Amino acid sequence: MTNVLFWNEFRHEKSHKEVQAVYPNGLHAPVVEHLRAQGFNASAATLDEPEHGLTQAVLDKTDVLLWWGHMAHHEVQDAIVDRVQARVLNGMGLIVLHSAHYSKIFKRLMGTSCSLKWRDIGEKERVWVVAPGHPITAGIDNYFEIAHEEMYGEYFDIPQPDETVFVGWFAGGNVFRSGACYNRGKGRVFYFQPGHETYPNYYQPEVLRVITNAVSWAAPRPWATVQYDHFPKPLEAL
Amino acid sequence: MTNVLFWNEFRHEKSHKEVQAVYPNGLHAPVVEHLRAQGFNASAATLDEPEHGLTQAVLDKTDVLLWWGHMAHHEVQDAIVDRVQARVLNGMGLIVLHSAHYSKIFKRLMGTSCSLKWRDIGEKERVWVVAPGHPITAGIDNYFEIAHEEMYGEYFDIPQPDETVFVGWFAGGNVFRSGACYNRGKGRVFYFQPGHETYPNYYQPEVLRVITNAVSWAAPRPWATVQYDHFPKPLEAL
Amino acid sequence: MTNVLFWNEFRHEKSHKEVQAVYPNGLHAPVVEHLRAQGFNASAATLDEPEHGLTQAVLDKTDVLLWWGHMAHHEVQDAIVDRVQARVLNGMGLIVLHSAHYSKIFKRLMGTSCSLKWRDIGEKERVWVVAPGHPITAGIDNYFEIAHEEMYGEYFDIPQPDETVFVGWFAGGNVFRSGACYNRGKGRVFYFQPGHETYPNYYQPEVLRVITNAVSWAAPRPWATVQYDHFPKPLEAL
Amino acid sequence: MTNVLFWNEFRHEKSHKEVQAVYPNGLHAPVVEHLRAQGFNASAATLDEPEHGLTQAVLDKTDVLLWWGHMAHHEVQDAIVDRVQARVLNGMGLIVLHSAHYSKIFKRLMGTSCSLKWRDIGEKERVWVVAPGHPITAGIDNYFEIAHEEMYGEYFDIPQPDETVFVGWFAGGNVFRSGACYNRGKGRVFYFQPGHETYPNYYQPEVLRVITNAVSWAAPRPWATVQYDHFPKPLEAL
Repeated sequence: MTNVLFWNEFRHEKSHKEVQAVYPNGLHAPVVEHLRAQGFNASAATLDEPEHGLTQAVLDKTDVLLWWGHMAHHEVQDAIVDRVQARVLNGMGLIVLHSAHYSKIFKRLMGTSCSLKWRDIGEKERVWVVAPGHPITAGIDNYFEIAHEEMYGEYFDIPQPDETVFVGWFAGGNVFRSGACYNRGKGRVFYFQPGHETYPNYYQPEVLRVITNAVSWAAPRPWATVQYDHFPKPLEAL
Repeated sequence: MTNVLFWNEFRHEKSHKEVQAVYPNGLHAPVVEHLRAQGFNASAATLDEPEHGLTQAVLDKTDVLLWWGHMAHHEVQDAIVDRVQARVLNGMGLIVLHSAHYSKIFKRLMGTSCSLKWRDIGEKERVWVVAPGHPITAGIDNYFEIAHEEMYGEYFDIPQPDETVFVGWFAGGNVFRSGACYNRGKGRVFYFQPGHETYPNYYQPEVLRVITNAVSWAAPRPWATVQYDHFPKPLEAL
Repeated sequence: MTNVLFWNEFRHEKSHKEVQAVYPNGLHAPVVEHLRAQGFNASAATLDEPEHGLTQAVLDKTDVLLWWGHMAHHEVQDAIVDRVQARVLNGMGLIVLHSAHYSKIFKRLMGTSCSLKWRDIGEKERVWVVAPGHPITAGIDNYFEIAHEEMYGEYFDIPQPDETVFVGWFAGGNVFRSGACYNRGKGRVFYFQPGHETYPNYYQPEVLRVITNAVSWAAPRPWATVQYDHFPKPLEAL
Repeated sequence: MTNVLFWNEFRHEKSHKEVQAVYPNGLHAPVVEHLRAQGFNASAATLDEPEHGLTQAVLDKTDVLLWWGHMAHHEVQDAIVDRVQARVLNGMGLIVLHSAHYSKIFKRLMGTSCSLKWRDIGEKERVWVVAPGHPITAGIDNYFEIAHEEMYGEYFDIPQPDETVFVGWFAGGNVFRSGACYNRGKGRVFYFQPGHETYPNYYQPEVLRVITNAVSWAAPRPWATVQYDHFPKPLEAL
């Protein structure tokens, strides 16, 4: 059984009434519930727990970590970012959601600024499939629409993705690489654009389908063994 | 001096009055003229010339070939496609324009169907930079707009580009990888979306700038020497 | 149950005694047998069957096709290459083995010459993992060795792989991208270097493990639906 | 004129007699001298200078930075790593040499551990071209040999390169992606394997040729302008 942990900053839901109205139990709640219904062992962790709920023991048993943050990226302790990065390189999957493009862990793994254009006027996004053979796009029919979403626009300062699977069209005139896959060490990383806190997009079936697909894709799988460091003896006689 | 050859099917300009009105000397003419003004040794070849104007001697001295075709892709002889492909693999640059997405040479080099969605209602395209460090995007300020263009939309059945440099936003709701770079053998290939025959887009300064950038990028440069075939003698004593 | 078809040219085994001694039932036989033991519905087809054993009906029910050819690439009918290519783009997996680097179907899908250096003196190859998180490398411990293999060496004229998973070291002094993954349309393509007809390498457990991993990786999976062609109606009111 | 700065840790040359014997003026000296002879405005900076010789003013006028470090990676101040990273993302080229695979700046830009296998027994490396059309390989004839080099071997924990241009063969039985190109923001990054401090490899013509090629490739070029941040006004009427 795949162990999935949704890490949510969980501050907007406490301080902003309009967010609370949409996500009374936190924006992680509908995702966790959906993943459980799909047979995953899903739970949540939040910023204000000790060690942000991300102790070494918790991470060691996590197969896929989802990350949502926004107003408090800077409060995440660097030592815990180190810990999450090490787990990703050792094979844990990581799904980076919406405003977590600016989280310490995503910037750490990308090596770039992860800056972008943004505008929050509740415009429509149409999310187009550009990699129909990729398991993350499974079940989508050419595209899906999100009635109201914060616009994120290019140029998005990320390394060219190992695979770009979605490109978003915004009614206000922008485009965005809304679904981007990376391999880092043995781990798989997926950035997914939707999920502004004031819109009910984590209840939308297509968004949940993509996240579920991504969890399956990013989960650890059988793999090679590799060692590093000093190997003083050559493999061939010299 | 870089030798540039614009290969144009040159049929619409003869048979369609509305195209003739826009491009009285062929849609290659404003591009060739612009490239000359930029210091390139530019000329044109067309389908109805002997060997389509693409003799081995012509190709051997061509540094960068531009290709526009639409209604007569099937009339291009396979032996000449072989010849062009061989030159690309040996280092000639190739710029594939608009409806040439469906040319024999592009399909040959891609290995895929190169199918796409299309709609010609004269809608606006906004072409966004997604690779600001790439020389093909030089001089563009975030994006440029084309007032009227044929919509080409995803899914575009091409191999994931080695570098995607532009993504197009269409007013009718679609997106497209409008600028896509490939390395094939020693040659560089650039696909560029704009250029429907009924709109004056090959007179637009940004379109001409991108094509000029692409010609410079695709031109042969100093490179490594590599041999193939049978090398019976090992490099190490065994 | 995954349907796997090993297409073997099956000529060396009839004409060369030394090959017959190693593979009395064809070099496909140990692979097919191994795949069956692993729970796949595996069978074989060969060049000299009607339509090379690759009728449309056979291809339509094939999930993953393996391809080995060498001395008779030119005898494969172009119409059947078309058919195989179309199936790959529509999602069938394709595993291209050893000298099939020069098969029509591989050259068709790559768009390049697929030329390389070669030398057959029975030297050692050591196949190194360069993508330990990739499912095709599962179960390999840093590298595996092949006692005697034909050398294939760089430069190998292929598009840069979407993922390079193995790099081969040859005792005679060469290197080679021995495991290369491509996405083409909805299909997945894997090129794997080992398998010269005079050595018993298709009996070697690590080689069989990699082929089995590749079959699982390339098998069709749930995916997106995409349409092409003319869509005259915009998705947005203009 | 391109401004090139070779940053050298410059400690081994002071503390180890065998290194001093090979590089009496620092291992940067032959490279700086060669670059000057090629027409570059080349100079050096070292760890023990104030701000490691990398003040903001110095970086602002640097087009391409070369980096060699080994025993004192941890002494490089994080604030200066931030500064270098920001300059790379804004377009400065970066050439990362040999043991700088483990420098803070390279790990920062890669997001991975950058770990590898190593062995220093003075074995032969043969560096093979795998991207003959790439300007960094210009002038190399299939491969070049280094008589004695420290072995660096796979698995090398880096993101898959945007372009792999060299693969190294080591006499002791290992392989390595010895030349790896990345785009990060507007900057270009090249990792190059050769350069152990006890061997005179920075005097070798092929090594100098590759470094010179890389400097030209990584130097800033005309490019697009892109802005980030908040753009409250849509580009289209909604």
